[in-house]
Amino acid sequence: MDQRLSLVTLAVRDLDATRAFYVDGLGWSPLLEEPGDVLMFKVADKVILSLWVRGHFEDEVGPIGMTTGIAPITLAHNVATRELVDEVLTTAHRAGADPVQRAEEREWGGYTGYFGDPDGYRWEVACAPGEIGQEVLP
Amino acid sequence: MDQRLSLVTLAVRDLDATRAFYVDGLGWSPLLEEPGDVLMFKVADKVILSLWVRGHFEDEVGPIGMTTGIAPITLAHNVATRELVDEVLTTAHRAGADPVQRAEEREWGGYTGYFGDPDGYRWEVACAPGEIGQEVLP
Repeated sequence: MDQRLSLVTLAVRDLDATRAFYVDGLGWSPLLEEPGDVLMFKVADKVILSLWVRGHFEDEVGPIGMTTGIAPITLAHNVATRELVDEVLTTAHRAGADPVQRAEEREWGGYTGYFGDPDGYRWEVACAPGEIGQEVLP
Repeated sequence: MDQRLSLVTLAVRDLDATRAFYVDGLGWSPLLEEPGDVLMFKVADKVILSLWVRGHFEDEVGPIGMTTGIAPITLAHNVATRELVDEVLTTAHRAGADPVQRAEEREWGGYTGYFGDPDGYRWEVACAPGEIGQEVLP
């Protein structure tokens, strides 16, 4: 099995709210959408983020085991400077992200904060110096 | 905020089991690892998959709300043919994946199956004709 990720799929409760946040709020452009079913964004070369309605996700994958609390996953959006981290968190706040956790210095040398999308999935906005930053920055 | 995903982070219960599965079982090569903390793989151009021990994840991100059941996320690994879907699922089975759900024809025209990694995170192995396949295949 090649070391390769093609899509990340997240189960969402309300696709209209998801669309409003990512498209109207963040200004992203869908690659493909089926109203009431799925909304996809190209998020890297050969990588798609897919937001799929929860019922259809569960029909195919199985029952989701979430209670109150955070999903065991985060998505990171890396940027080149600490100022850009703060700017993106402000953009997310204006788009209605909840919660928005202000960025702070991390012990490993980075500067990162988090915001929640309409389902509470956490995006980490990060300035990561060194190897990781070099690997992922455009 | 640019339309861009840099890292996908999954909280894991036992990093040794995770390493055994992905490195020894699937044959993947770590980009970076900190024993007892994190294991990272490059999984696309400018995209990293990060497996982070659950305690450290929760210290930074917050309490995870999972019960028995599936996490509300899947990762997809797309391949060019139906035969390769079956081959990758067989590889995952040999590596100890549990469960392994045999591939089937999907109503949207694809052929996909799923396997669970040591934490039960589902990978979908997919042959997707048309636009999606063209977007993500190497």
